[in-house]
Amino acid sequence: MLTPGATIGILGGGQLAQMLALAAATLGLRCHIFAPPGDHPAFAVAAARTEAAYDDAQALAAFAASVDVVTYEFENVPAGTAAILVDRVPVRPRPEALAITQDRWLEKSFIRDLGLPTPAFLPIDGFDMLEEGVATLGRPSVLKTRRMGYDGKGQVLIGPETDLRTAFAAIAAQPAILEAFVPFSREVSVVAARAADGSIAAFDLCENAHKHHILALTRVPAAVAGATAALASAMAGQIAARLDYVGVLAVELFVLETAAGETLLINEIAPRVHNSGHWTIEGADTSQFEQHMRAIAGWPLGSTARRGRIEMENLIGEDVARFARILGEPGAHLHLYGKGEARPGRKMGHVTRIFDD
Amino acid sequence: MLTPGATIGILGGGQLAQMLALAAATLGLRCHIFAPPGDHPAFAVAAARTEAAYDDAQALAAFAASVDVVTYEFENVPAGTAAILVDRVPVRPRPEALAITQDRWLEKSFIRDLGLPTPAFLPIDGFDMLEEGVATLGRPSVLKTRRMGYDGKGQVLIGPETDLRTAFAAIAAQPAILEAFVPFSREVSVVAARAADGSIAAFDLCENAHKHHILALTRVPAAVAGATAALASAMAGQIAARLDYVGVLAVELFVLETAAGETLLINEIAPRVHNSGHWTIEGADTSQFEQHMRAIAGWPLGSTARRGRIEMENLIGEDVARFARILGEPGAHLHLYGKGEARPGRKMGHVTRIFDD
Repeated sequence: MLTPGATIGILGGGQLAQMLALAAATLGLRCHIFAPPGDHPAFAVAAARTEAAYDDAQALAAFAASVDVVTYEFENVPAGTAAILVDRVPVRPRPEALAITQDRWLEKSFIRDLGLPTPAFLPIDGFDMLEEGVATLGRPSVLKTRRMGYDGKGQVLIGPETDLRTAFAAIAAQPAILEAFVPFSREVSVVAARAADGSIAAFDLCENAHKHHILALTRVPAAVAGATAALASAMAGQIAARLDYVGVLAVELFVLETAAGETLLINEIAPRVHNSGHWTIEGADTSQFEQHMRAIAGWPLGSTARRGRIEMENLIGEDVARFARILGEPGAHLHLYGKGEARPGRKMGHVTRIFDD
Repeated sequence: MLTPGATIGILGGGQLAQMLALAAATLGLRCHIFAPPGDHPAFAVAAARTEAAYDDAQALAAFAASVDVVTYEFENVPAGTAAILVDRVPVRPRPEALAITQDRWLEKSFIRDLGLPTPAFLPIDGFDMLEEGVATLGRPSVLKTRRMGYDGKGQVLIGPETDLRTAFAAIAAQPAILEAFVPFSREVSVVAARAADGSIAAFDLCENAHKHHILALTRVPAAVAGATAALASAMAGQIAARLDYVGVLAVELFVLETAAGETLLINEIAPRVHNSGHWTIEGADTSQFEQHMRAIAGWPLGSTARRGRIEMENLIGEDVARFARILGEPGAHLHLYGKGEARPGRKMGHVTRIFDD
């Protein structure tokens, strides 16, 4: 159990690291940000920074020596980085969670092996396997690289007319999986935390709308049956427990409407705080960022009680030009990440609106 | 009107500066902290720092050149410091508010000249004046230095038996005022903001309990009549308007129970965010820290709507040892300031508890 004044090391310097650092500061914890050279939002709110490549062993060793625990804001931390750190300092969540979630094949297999529902999937290690896979799963189906996919990157929809050679070339013939297309009615996510003592607390189920594969809007509570929400939460808890996870994680799921009612399929696991949990800053007793800090510090989890009905809107690219109008909107909570250029598709900030339940 | 990415200069590096910096970061603003050499809480959450004395003209000029607006966390900014800055960069609130509020004589005279009620007071510029003053105002009365008093420092109660020579020596024979003793029933405060366009917004009236002259507990709403609360709020607005103030200020008042009902007397003005406003972080739509940033950035003020009934408890000195118990208390919002040593009387953090109204 850390004491106030301890130093949290964070790999990554983006908005998730920034909001983690703000939560840490509120709890009397110091932050040391490790990120590649550049102008990162989290640098501006941290007590210390290391600007170095993620494979700089010397910089990683010095970083490890200067902090009490290491955490990260993204799942694509290289395995070698984690290995260097874990020998020197507690890394939370444990790197095994990274190894599984940064590879879609391992991730989906892990979910299936837990007995949890996921879309049908097959490994694709060459063009022949893609042809066979499409014959098995049918069209439409979705080809996804095993590694480094996010916000829709590294994905190709295989429709009725899609040429398979073109599709395979589009992902540069990388190791991949093929997934059955899921005609879902809603996308939802569970943001949950597991403490060092094994206790688990989930925030209320979020309903997510994407634009161009990037999260645009999160609504809480999700418009699903109470039993569906409880089941999603239980699944997230099962995943966290099996991973011996410490910290906040997010589980994204599809909701299908079937004759028997709502059915859930797990889409993916994010071993970190998550964009769909940003509403917790003002909308829950404890924010996901504070919750993550509590967990990795070995402290008890906070209450996840929600207040009101919530909408969190991402400000993407030029959306940020609306900041003055949002400031004038009574009760709207504006968050800007301090990024310079408002490039298309770049997450510049978000706004949370709370309505009476 | 500043745009996101602008830099806020803050004089002072304590917990108020820290919480201002956290609010600034959330709005996409950068902070540059100017404070004397030392380990200041705000340094750990700011993009830039200058460690220099407040009378270091060269450091002040460089600081002014690096920021878009300057503000401060405490009223005892030296006049010379303000003068150097104000020639180079907008200073908000304007230094005239400092000049008035850092001198009890000017402050009380300002309040009286506005036609607002304050305890009877007299200037004390020598021992003869003290003898005459006590003859006029009677015992008990309170001798207070004109300058540099806070948390009860620089004050002597003149009781029935107090030797006046001893009392005068206790404040080192400094220029002072003598105030009539006020048999108040409650101490309350208004935390309000005035925007650059002159609009004013006050948070709900706070009721404050002190221990050893240090704020121990703030309760919101204050247990006074609605008309009393409205009057206090209107007085704060009048003060802010007359000062042509931009930013958050706090007005501390005494409530007296008289035959005619509740009467208000203004005790003092703090030209800054205030300890009795810390509850607004979780308890109001907009925190006092964000409100101050909005005002000095030339942005519209945010909603001051309150949720629930609120108690804010200061963690003073060894109180901070209770942090783990507070973390385990459902719905309690813990704030620690990242200060090292828990010296007696030192404000180490606070906790905010919200109850259904």
